[in-house]
Amino acid sequence: MTGAGDIFLSELMGTATLLLLGCGVVANVVLARTKGFNGGFLMINFGWGLAVFAGVYVAYKSGAHLNPAVTVGLLSAGQSLGGALHVLAYLGGQFLGAFVGAALAWAAYRDHFDDPESDPGAKLAVFSTGPAIPRRLSNFVTEFIATFVLVFVVVAFGRTPSGLGPLAVALLVVGIGASLGGPTGYAINPARDLAPRLAHALLPIKNKGGSDWSYAWIPVVAPLAGGAVAGLLAHGTGFI
Amino acid sequence: MTGAGDIFLSELMGTATLLLLGCGVVANVVLARTKGFNGGFLMINFGWGLAVFAGVYVAYKSGAHLNPAVTVGLLSAGQSLGGALHVLAYLGGQFLGAFVGAALAWAAYRDHFDDPESDPGAKLAVFSTGPAIPRRLSNFVTEFIATFVLVFVVVAFGRTPSGLGPLAVALLVVGIGASLGGPTGYAINPARDLAPRLAHALLPIKNKGGSDWSYAWIPVVAPLAGGAVAGLLAHGTGFI
Amino acid sequence: MTGAGDIFLSELMGTATLLLLGCGVVANVVLARTKGFNGGFLMINFGWGLAVFAGVYVAYKSGAHLNPAVTVGLLSAGQSLGGALHVLAYLGGQFLGAFVGAALAWAAYRDHFDDPESDPGAKLAVFSTGPAIPRRLSNFVTEFIATFVLVFVVVAFGRTPSGLGPLAVALLVVGIGASLGGPTGYAINPARDLAPRLAHALLPIKNKGGSDWSYAWIPVVAPLAGGAVAGLLAHGTGFI
Amino acid sequence: MTGAGDIFLSELMGTATLLLLGCGVVANVVLARTKGFNGGFLMINFGWGLAVFAGVYVAYKSGAHLNPAVTVGLLSAGQSLGGALHVLAYLGGQFLGAFVGAALAWAAYRDHFDDPESDPGAKLAVFSTGPAIPRRLSNFVTEFIATFVLVFVVVAFGRTPSGLGPLAVALLVVGIGASLGGPTGYAINPARDLAPRLAHALLPIKNKGGSDWSYAWIPVVAPLAGGAVAGLLAHGTGFI
Repeated sequence: MTGAGDIFLSELMGTATLLLLGCGVVANVVLARTKGFNGGFLMINFGWGLAVFAGVYVAYKSGAHLNPAVTVGLLSAGQSLGGALHVLAYLGGQFLGAFVGAALAWAAYRDHFDDPESDPGAKLAVFSTGPAIPRRLSNFVTEFIATFVLVFVVVAFGRTPSGLGPLAVALLVVGIGASLGGPTGYAINPARDLAPRLAHALLPIKNKGGSDWSYAWIPVVAPLAGGAVAGLLAHGTGFI
Repeated sequence: MTGAGDIFLSELMGTATLLLLGCGVVANVVLARTKGFNGGFLMINFGWGLAVFAGVYVAYKSGAHLNPAVTVGLLSAGQSLGGALHVLAYLGGQFLGAFVGAALAWAAYRDHFDDPESDPGAKLAVFSTGPAIPRRLSNFVTEFIATFVLVFVVVAFGRTPSGLGPLAVALLVVGIGASLGGPTGYAINPARDLAPRLAHALLPIKNKGGSDWSYAWIPVVAPLAGGAVAGLLAHGTGFI
Repeated sequence: MTGAGDIFLSELMGTATLLLLGCGVVANVVLARTKGFNGGFLMINFGWGLAVFAGVYVAYKSGAHLNPAVTVGLLSAGQSLGGALHVLAYLGGQFLGAFVGAALAWAAYRDHFDDPESDPGAKLAVFSTGPAIPRRLSNFVTEFIATFVLVFVVVAFGRTPSGLGPLAVALLVVGIGASLGGPTGYAINPARDLAPRLAHALLPIKNKGGSDWSYAWIPVVAPLAGGAVAGLLAHGTGFI
Repeated sequence: MTGAGDIFLSELMGTATLLLLGCGVVANVVLARTKGFNGGFLMINFGWGLAVFAGVYVAYKSGAHLNPAVTVGLLSAGQSLGGALHVLAYLGGQFLGAFVGAALAWAAYRDHFDDPESDPGAKLAVFSTGPAIPRRLSNFVTEFIATFVLVFVVVAFGRTPSGLGPLAVALLVVGIGASLGGPTGYAINPARDLAPRLAHALLPIKNKGGSDWSYAWIPVVAPLAGGAVAGLLAHGTGFI
């Protein structure tokens, strides 16, 4: 794949798949009257991991970044990605795809969003992450560490003969979610958090609360920083 | 494999395996006095995913559609499947196999169906899906989206060097179930829902209730539509 | 591997690994004061599946039957296995290995067996299966069906280019357990049930109850019958 | 990779990844107010297994021992590992990496450690293992058996054509945890237990209790013994 348009479309479709399934599993666990209600955190971890799995196959033509922190991490690891226009195609496709996927998850769970028993906080949680204990520095550190692990190990995948491809990334995301998702809900991806937050703000969701914009910069800036540092470390030290 | 008879038998055996294990895991979770009672939605997701896993191996000679929505999706993606007779063999094998598999699951759990503590609604849930919140348009949309994802990603599997084969489809079904199964129980397969519903109506199950035929068209029409649109999109746009 | 002695040792070590980990996960879930107490049926399913995974690697030299129903199924599918002495080596290694593995699981959980809060019925459940609803014909049917699926799909594994090897068998056992383990606890293996039952009877377990010998023939005869019929069907029809 | 420095760095980074994710999942399940609170033992098993998965990729250049019991087991199985200096590099990297990883897990969950509802015993459990029923001989036996299985099967992995690589080790650790983790919490790795225990003692954790140094030798000596005996058995008998 060489064209920026192809990259844009591939990342858009892949990230839409990721967010449809990712927001979907949260909806299933937290919204009222679903069949998976209260299914537990491990179910959310597997749901997001398998959302990555499906999204990676859909976006395989563009290398399936699906995440600006991965794009930035690969840049900082020394990959050119074909120039500035291509980088913009990656980022644009990711943000637009994340918006579309979140909107589709809302469409799939619409009656459950409308159900009076569904909590406004739960409705936001379907779209975007939020901290269990809101303290900006701590939340930043957690998201930084978790995204660092994601990008560092993804770079390591690329240089080892694993043969597992999309499954390896999926399992890594299951693991990061189970292990490091406790404090902030593991955004580890600016597009995954910001675009659905915008969808939450714009969509006509019944009885919704605020979109918590004051927190919105953390799951954008911390993952970008964590990804960039992971890429730099992998590149500069030649470790991986 | 070239003969329609071989296709019919292969799809029949594979879909019977799928429904035996798929209905089985629901029986284990919802019927009274089983060892897996109340095992949770994630257990149901893994059970159905691994049911697909086993069924795909059994039906590998025919390409393991196991699902009319997949057959229709491949047709709309431009595959001929060898002509009308072969298509009928696929569909016939799938529906008959689904009936047989559901009946075998009933045989395996017979005492638990007969147990007076087992709820009539739970007995139907072993065989067929039903909506958590019955609203036809919403239920249609959910099944359409979920089957679209299934067929679209399955087509993507066929065009990427994954090497995971049956495991990839199994994990995709685990993921779709966890993420999009909340509102309707993810039929995403007309044979999987309609034939077992008929089995529920015909088998001498003690203290059973109605088979909810008024809902029966949704998990037939919506998956077919979702699969067809997914195939068309993959084909027409050349995206995948 | 050609010698009967090698087969015997390989099956012994592999089946001991299987039973150590398999009985272990049940002990973890049902005995008092363990860290995994009440961990759920899905945890038991994964535990037994991964016990198969480890056991298959250990016994790879002998083809890792680990189960007389598999040995009998392969015989009835037309494989010679090298003659009667080799068959005896398979069966002998499996039964002795199952006894050793169960005894090791008891050693690993000894304080929890001795704990006064551990129920005598739970202690037996660590070693051997028992029916949720004791009705001989139904219990036979369930074990027959479940073992049929096991052996039929294992034969299918052998004739498809899966590349997953031990993982495929492990996942199949997770699936059969989740889907068909509800009524009888899925022995699906005569050695897995009979030899540990003998271990339960012979080992100096504190406050143990009876070993329920009246049920013991079901998880021996039904799996053998299910495996034999699966092998015959695969062989006679040429289906797989 | 030939240099001791490279081995040291590789094992350090891999073991840090292992402990960051491993301690992380325990923190998520046991500390107050996390999103994964009370997520269950199976979630801990998957978290540790996937922690191994990520760590093995990071440390692939040095063969990813990540565990002195594995290093000792390979030595006793007859591998030279390049001499005494290299062995020291393995062990040093493992212990230092485990310390760093545990400290990072504390950083990621800092607010939850500081939360007054978090139990001092739970805080120690994030770092190090402890017995459910403290009896030295029994605890030793359990850790010995569990580590024996780990090293014996890892050696078997190296001699079979599995192709699963890091996934095989990850699944083995999930299985050992589910099956044999009930009595002692499966340290099965001296570095994984001792270095984080030191981190627990040294880090400024609010309201922490003691570090239970009286138990500390068990998860060091028993895994080393189990690994050494597993290596000897595999080597001396030529079984694997």
